[in-house]
Amino acid sequence: MEAQLQKVVYTIQPYPELLSMLTYHMGWQGEGAGPEAQGKRIRPILVLLSAAAVGGNWRAALPAAASVELLHNFSLIHDDIQDQSEVRRGRPTVWKKWGVAQAINAGDLMFTLAQQAILELGTSANPGVGLEGARILNHTCVALTEGQYLDMANEQARSLPLSDYWPMVGGKTAALLSACAELGGLAAGGSETQRMALRTFGWSLGLAFQVLDDWLGIWGNADKIGKSTSSDLVTGKKTLPVVYALAQGGAFARRWLSGPVSAEEVGEVAAMLAAEGAEAYTLAEAERLTRQSREALDSLEGEAEACAALRELADGLLQRQA
Amino acid sequence: MEAQLQKVVYTIQPYPELLSMLTYHMGWQGEGAGPEAQGKRIRPILVLLSAAAVGGNWRAALPAAASVELLHNFSLIHDDIQDQSEVRRGRPTVWKKWGVAQAINAGDLMFTLAQQAILELGTSANPGVGLEGARILNHTCVALTEGQYLDMANEQARSLPLSDYWPMVGGKTAALLSACAELGGLAAGGSETQRMALRTFGWSLGLAFQVLDDWLGIWGNADKIGKSTSSDLVTGKKTLPVVYALAQGGAFARRWLSGPVSAEEVGEVAAMLAAEGAEAYTLAEAERLTRQSREALDSLEGEAEACAALRELADGLLQRQA
Repeated sequence: MEAQLQKVVYTIQPYPELLSMLTYHMGWQGEGAGPEAQGKRIRPILVLLSAAAVGGNWRAALPAAASVELLHNFSLIHDDIQDQSEVRRGRPTVWKKWGVAQAINAGDLMFTLAQQAILELGTSANPGVGLEGARILNHTCVALTEGQYLDMANEQARSLPLSDYWPMVGGKTAALLSACAELGGLAAGGSETQRMALRTFGWSLGLAFQVLDDWLGIWGNADKIGKSTSSDLVTGKKTLPVVYALAQGGAFARRWLSGPVSAEEVGEVAAMLAAEGAEAYTLAEAERLTRQSREALDSLEGEAEACAALRELADGLLQRQA
Repeated sequence: MEAQLQKVVYTIQPYPELLSMLTYHMGWQGEGAGPEAQGKRIRPILVLLSAAAVGGNWRAALPAAASVELLHNFSLIHDDIQDQSEVRRGRPTVWKKWGVAQAINAGDLMFTLAQQAILELGTSANPGVGLEGARILNHTCVALTEGQYLDMANEQARSLPLSDYWPMVGGKTAALLSACAELGGLAAGGSETQRMALRTFGWSLGLAFQVLDDWLGIWGNADKIGKSTSSDLVTGKKTLPVVYALAQGGAFARRWLSGPVSAEEVGEVAAMLAAEGAEAYTLAEAERLTRQSREALDSLEGEAEACAALRELADGLLQRQA
């Protein structure tokens, strides 16, 4: 996988410093380079396993696998500028090293490389598959920018309408995982039914992951409740339990809207959330989405070994800290 | 043309404010909207005339025409952030109105819409044309980001190697004009030979335009020489005459590298440039490139009326202030 990614990125030869912004961000070069700096490459693995799951040639899906990882990393380069994050995977972010202007441009180039990679499906599979792959990728990009817009637009506000929560996490997390699974199926010649099952699998998996992450951010580390400063309740993050309880307009909503929650209040405010049904709602949603993703995978009736590996990947993501 | 562009942009429905960033930038909505705020749409016109020139159906090229204009506008949104430009076509820039973070995201969405538009060639023409069109577009995007990189990387320096001048203006101006002409020929079913002629036509036209613009920035307004504060010599722009004379390492180079040129010195410094052959070189390059673009157009032996219109468009661009 790393070889396929590097093939795409190293095609741009002439300007060593421009190239080095990309290879630095990918974790291949510069100070602190190495596996730790590269992320887990979950998205390309999801593409390749999905290709194998429909019984096709997973090698035909390699361009799609490279493309989704490049797209993910493009979005991280721009996200870090937007959030003013100075550190990513333990290293200074691209904008911190090269400035905002060059980092925007490096992100644009990474975005372009993702587009070029997906078009290679036109060769590794056939022209119709290349076109359809590019359509899926760009449909995902629209969702990504919509999710990012919603996230930033609501950053100043203390609340978020429940109706904006799903498109926000859908755009920021689920859309790309959904595209990964569908692109794998597409590249390996899966049927329309199989592609739809994979799309649903990836989408539900992405939402389930995010909802569980929201639960973990409040109740995940029980022995720390009451003293944690890293609780999502202290940082003010608009997680599903918070958004749900705000929509109820009860005691929690009044407390939340009156101002920041201190580390000392975390236990008490978490209890308010639970009392108003927000924890039960969140866990029920996580369970519903997890079930939905498993059912989609089962309905695929795909190649047994690859499906087992997909299930394992999904379970690993969903149980990581539970 | 405006209708085709609006069709692409207005497909993204859900978030009025995100949509309004795009429609504002395109000059369709918001304060100061109207033809003045929309630019001249030269690139889509070039696409459509090129399609007609190969004797094909220009309507098949409409998706490509929309795509190049969206791509151009995506690059303007990001350029304005990178250059910290507060005004574009007489109105506040997108980042000035919505902030840097939202403007980066709006640019990313505009980029995505350009990609989606070009893929429509897969329907308006055929899948192979759609794929090839997307390849041409993304090849151009690589050149654009390389040109932008070179421009920004040399911003602090007082000089620019002559070897970096051509890829810089090639990437920033000629690559997209070249793609416009080629995409028109591709969409309308032109032969490989015709496409190559159109590509050369657009590329030479873009370079000729930039070189003439460089000449105009120093010698364009003879009655103002000696008192103009807007001269490229005062702003320190790395134009072709300057880059050429710097490579000579003579009196001009010593003067230029010693510090900024004041408005009073403009006449004297321009005379140094001319004495060292920089004006003659620049005009010779402009003439060579203009001839090259005319020859490429003649070699096309295309549909007479469309070729005449292309020649008129080119002449208009090249003679605009001469």
